[in-house]
Amino acid sequence: MTRDKAKRAGRQARLALRARGPAENPCPPGQIGGAYAPLAESEIGAIYAAALDLLEQLGMGDVPERLATRLLAAGAVPGDGGRILFPRSLCEDVIAGACKRFVFHGRDPDRSIEVGGSTVHFGTGGAAVQVLDLDTGLYRAATLADLHDFARLQDRLTNISWFTRNCIATDVADPFDLDVNTAYALLANTTKPVATAFTLASHVAPIVAMFDIAAGGEGAFARRPFVKAHVSPVISPMRYGADAVAVIFECIRHNIPLTCITAAQAGATAPAPLAGFLAQSLAETLASLVMVHAIRPGHPMVFSNWPFVVDLRTGSFAGGGSETALMNAASAQIINWLGLPSGVAASMTDAKAIDAQYGMEKGMTSLAAALAGANMVYESSGMTASLLGASFEAFVLDDEMHSANYRILRGIEVGPDTLDTDAIIEAVLGTGHFLSADQTMAAMERDFFYPALADRTSPDAWAAAGARTAWERATDRARELLQSDHPRYLSAAEENAIRERFRILSG
Amino acid sequence: MTRDKAKRAGRQARLALRARGPAENPCPPGQIGGAYAPLAESEIGAIYAAALDLLEQLGMGDVPERLATRLLAAGAVPGDGGRILFPRSLCEDVIAGACKRFVFHGRDPDRSIEVGGSTVHFGTGGAAVQVLDLDTGLYRAATLADLHDFARLQDRLTNISWFTRNCIATDVADPFDLDVNTAYALLANTTKPVATAFTLASHVAPIVAMFDIAAGGEGAFARRPFVKAHVSPVISPMRYGADAVAVIFECIRHNIPLTCITAAQAGATAPAPLAGFLAQSLAETLASLVMVHAIRPGHPMVFSNWPFVVDLRTGSFAGGGSETALMNAASAQIINWLGLPSGVAASMTDAKAIDAQYGMEKGMTSLAAALAGANMVYESSGMTASLLGASFEAFVLDDEMHSANYRILRGIEVGPDTLDTDAIIEAVLGTGHFLSADQTMAAMERDFFYPALADRTSPDAWAAAGARTAWERATDRARELLQSDHPRYLSAAEENAIRERFRILSG
Repeated sequence: MTRDKAKRAGRQARLALRARGPAENPCPPGQIGGAYAPLAESEIGAIYAAALDLLEQLGMGDVPERLATRLLAAGAVPGDGGRILFPRSLCEDVIAGACKRFVFHGRDPDRSIEVGGSTVHFGTGGAAVQVLDLDTGLYRAATLADLHDFARLQDRLTNISWFTRNCIATDVADPFDLDVNTAYALLANTTKPVATAFTLASHVAPIVAMFDIAAGGEGAFARRPFVKAHVSPVISPMRYGADAVAVIFECIRHNIPLTCITAAQAGATAPAPLAGFLAQSLAETLASLVMVHAIRPGHPMVFSNWPFVVDLRTGSFAGGGSETALMNAASAQIINWLGLPSGVAASMTDAKAIDAQYGMEKGMTSLAAALAGANMVYESSGMTASLLGASFEAFVLDDEMHSANYRILRGIEVGPDTLDTDAIIEAVLGTGHFLSADQTMAAMERDFFYPALADRTSPDAWAAAGARTAWERATDRARELLQSDHPRYLSAAEENAIRERFRILSG
Repeated sequence: MTRDKAKRAGRQARLALRARGPAENPCPPGQIGGAYAPLAESEIGAIYAAALDLLEQLGMGDVPERLATRLLAAGAVPGDGGRILFPRSLCEDVIAGACKRFVFHGRDPDRSIEVGGSTVHFGTGGAAVQVLDLDTGLYRAATLADLHDFARLQDRLTNISWFTRNCIATDVADPFDLDVNTAYALLANTTKPVATAFTLASHVAPIVAMFDIAAGGEGAFARRPFVKAHVSPVISPMRYGADAVAVIFECIRHNIPLTCITAAQAGATAPAPLAGFLAQSLAETLASLVMVHAIRPGHPMVFSNWPFVVDLRTGSFAGGGSETALMNAASAQIINWLGLPSGVAASMTDAKAIDAQYGMEKGMTSLAAALAGANMVYESSGMTASLLGASFEAFVLDDEMHSANYRILRGIEVGPDTLDTDAIIEAVLGTGHFLSADQTMAAMERDFFYPALADRTSPDAWAAAGARTAWERATDRARELLQSDHPRYLSAAEENAIRERFRILSG
């Protein structure tokens, strides 16, 4: 065979292989992070010590009485002005006894994920009030129909490991109806692990009754909870919020795993200097952990210390900046160092358009968080406009970006199969290239991620095909997924039982 | 003062401060990388050992006679079929004696940079043959006028630390005219450190004569060289290229610092398995270093081991993929581990449009390379379309992205000023916020980067202003810079002397 013929034959074999698709995903979710360490060990120690100082000397304000009783019983001590102080030893004991790793169940067990260690999963968060309209390319108010669409869309995307309701159905005015219909949208459209928020503690029990219907009977949900609650029980700086604390009590009673989010804003509700910021927000999230411990020791809580940045020119939250990338990575590093399940918010952007700013900000903030080993990267998919907006196009683009993140995390395997000098010598002295080497075919499936939305054609081919942007390609892909058949994940009997008991609005 | 009044006063002070601009750039070029370590130390050792094995057992083919004489004199040994083998001890001695750190001079000494250690600088590279037209948004052939425009544009951008001619003037047919007019474009439009390529060795001496005119007289350039040469003396796999080797001899004779680039392509001219790829390309770049040593020990050479990836579906080079991000970071880590000045190619993209794909690929590949500590990140600015294209809009967007990269690299300062628990306690028990704290005003200038092109407005404000994309904003900014006055960096006497001796084409 001539060299040209060998090249052609090799190319045909490769094309045939690619047409079949890869034998397995070369970079699935749950890769291991931690290769990026923004802080030195001594710096983590200093920030942690400062956080413990704050809890011991300043403590928490606005402590609801019910919680105060529990905290004092657990070893906290009263301070001035109604504040409650946490001795260092209490905090250390709470961390030592906290849940370090847990299974975040999907209704489909194959979709469950294990949270903890240095594993990385991307998922959603957020409470966007606007949606980037697929037709107009402009923002409009988010609706219940959007939430159903987002839930269906993400159900088809591999790299979104769980689905937190990502937008608020602003067309549902009543808070109870809103919580009920949000929960229903999750049950109806996906069997991944899901998460929601409860506006009031009184909403928890009835909604758990809905989960029980989907789980197979009363009490079934609590035995294998597949919904996690997002709660922000701390109001920065350094005080509790009564409504959210009440929700925490109720969630723990129903065995709902918690994501306790601190979203302090640098320069506004927390210090602008980054180290001081990290110390305060660490203290605040530790205050959530002590609270959970005081109610039920060892209850699963994702330690979600999200460093938010305010653009001091305007006072507005900015989610796509470099300080956010850096502080989220540092936050993940600190939480993993403590051995707790870590949650941060990354792959955020301040862009409204699905444009170059969008890509740069998401690419950098997501990679920094992933490399640092954040267990759960919230807000990572579909969010735009400083978390004010949600976008269908963003979902499909972010899903592909996460494959790139996972491929980078997977790293470089160094071993006899991958570092074979004999094979190199043979190829160099033989054909003089590697196109038709056995190694090449195997590595092609095993080691390389082939994006579907990224355009790798030449400038001429791109122009001939209409000079389209990633935004346009993503619009098509999102439409295609939304228009395709999608399973209903509730049986007719479950549907009926839910609709008998709850006011399910069309969405 | 009421709390609201204090907030307003604080906001006014902040706005006034921002209007003046920051006192100094919070994240200048030359930040320190290395916080991301994609490979374990033992893995680096294994890859390095494999590279030394390849050099010792396989060595290099197609060795020009003049070079062979030098290599054998330096301690290399003859192998079969005209190949030359490099004993392990020779390679180790060469690395030990190599230039570890050097000043890359700008004609303006204030623009010189020091290359080495773990400092990171972004700059250009590339030889784009097409340009993204500012008016049509489509690609067309690159011209000499474009090269002049790119040189003038980048001269205004802080984060492009040096300028390698980024496009080929395809309207200049004669190779000597091309090299001459490329060199002239660099001299006329910028005083940053610059780099170019020489098509043939015979072009070096006359072009150095042009540099001498700009440097102040015969021999002045060689005493303080402000131009570096990009050469690819190795043709993968594992052989030398005669023309490029001849250029190397001539550059060293004229004291021109070298960037010796290995651009092996995974799966084509090097193994597809990543570890094997890194071993071969490391061996090839070491072969360049041994060559430089054999000609003049200690001559400055940027060890530019650029891992390139071929999309095995099509056989085309793909520069924006996750494997590229990962392997460039690993390559930088290995080179820094050897203590040599490291060069990689990152912030590449396969996108043609200035779109979300562009942003994601550039964001991820640039951040990975920077965090790994690459000293010189080539191809990092203005390049598109898998290095086939260059774009004015890309230059201004990439410049702003590099500020984000540098801000992340700068990291988090942990010390008494930044981790001040007393200040936190005072703010919490006082105003209850940090908006008007002294710390906030100081940190605002010192610690935060405020992007100019990124849009941080609300969805409504964005729509009201025309719902523009980053591409549109960058087009405006690029036009504004290109239309503004720009210094000529050659005196009338220098211009005349150059034009008397060389055929300078209008550009």
